[in-house]
Amino acid sequence: MSEYVNDTLKAILNRKSVRHFSSQEVTKEQLNELVKAGMAAPTTLNCQPWEFIVVTDKEMLSEFAYSLQFGKMIDNAKAAIVVCTDTQKASEKHYDYAIIDASLASENILIAAESMGLGAAWVAVHPKEVAVNYIREKLNIPETIIPLNVIPIGYPTGQDYVKDKYNADVIHWEKW
Amino acid sequence: MSEYVNDTLKAILNRKSVRHFSSQEVTKEQLNELVKAGMAAPTTLNCQPWEFIVVTDKEMLSEFAYSLQFGKMIDNAKAAIVVCTDTQKASEKHYDYAIIDASLASENILIAAESMGLGAAWVAVHPKEVAVNYIREKLNIPETIIPLNVIPIGYPTGQDYVKDKYNADVIHWEKW
Repeated sequence: MSEYVNDTLKAILNRKSVRHFSSQEVTKEQLNELVKAGMAAPTTLNCQPWEFIVVTDKEMLSEFAYSLQFGKMIDNAKAAIVVCTDTQKASEKHYDYAIIDASLASENILIAAESMGLGAAWVAVHPKEVAVNYIREKLNIPETIIPLNVIPIGYPTGQDYVKDKYNADVIHWEKW
Repeated sequence: MSEYVNDTLKAILNRKSVRHFSSQEVTKEQLNELVKAGMAAPTTLNCQPWEFIVVTDKEMLSEFAYSLQFGKMIDNAKAAIVVCTDTQKASEKHYDYAIIDASLASENILIAAESMGLGAAWVAVHPKEVAVNYIREKLNIPETIIPLNVIPIGYPTGQDYVKDKYNADVIHWEKW
């Protein structure tokens, strides 16, 4: 058997948190493709509670980099996608479904980026209240909408490596 | 430009909730590959709070099918992966990080299945208290562990189709 069964598994297994981006630009078409991948995730009872904000403004990215914990790499990214969720649109208006649905969309974006030769990372916003309020204010996000993360996008320099997290101890067969 | 930029985007965009499975068996190697894909997801501060239970017992699958809301298709699946999360292992022992991290692992499994020609679906367990207690009891899951879903796995008959959920209205450029 080859190391990877197919290209998709290769992308999934090679996805990494990219913190070093080159000067190569990212196109609007690429960003749109990433968001499109996000919207292909499943949502509880197909409620699609997600909203996406795509930021390419250099000054805004720099501000995020200096204001968000663990967000320094946003400064040299070419864009960022902020994945948000709307509890009011979620199944049963349930907070957990809103968070889960937007999380799945975010993971699609991370895998899609890896497959396109781009780098990305999940910089947490929710559930950090200070970060949520900061991003809401900066991007005019309504009070009812939760910004889940900031996902910086750019071409990786190659300085970031994948972590092998395989752990047989957390796999249970048939029962716990 | 071709319809899909690459095979991974094709798998992401073609992923569907599969509710009809053929009689073709699924191997232990395939199930292990799916769980491995799950463990390649990022987790908050790399805490990896996830646990996976792989069920292939036909009787157990039938019980799930008749006891879980929207879970009828589990009866003709060849296996199911129950993705769980441990709040105690999550970053800051935070409930939200625990749920998000295990959700990302689950999405990896769904995309990996599509890429391998398999079918899967997310049958919700958490946050439905009755379902959580039922699955905990059936699978001997400790009280501190949250079972997030049951993901039936099998070969699709081809009766389930992908939904086009692309919606330009939820994409905001630069600001809300």
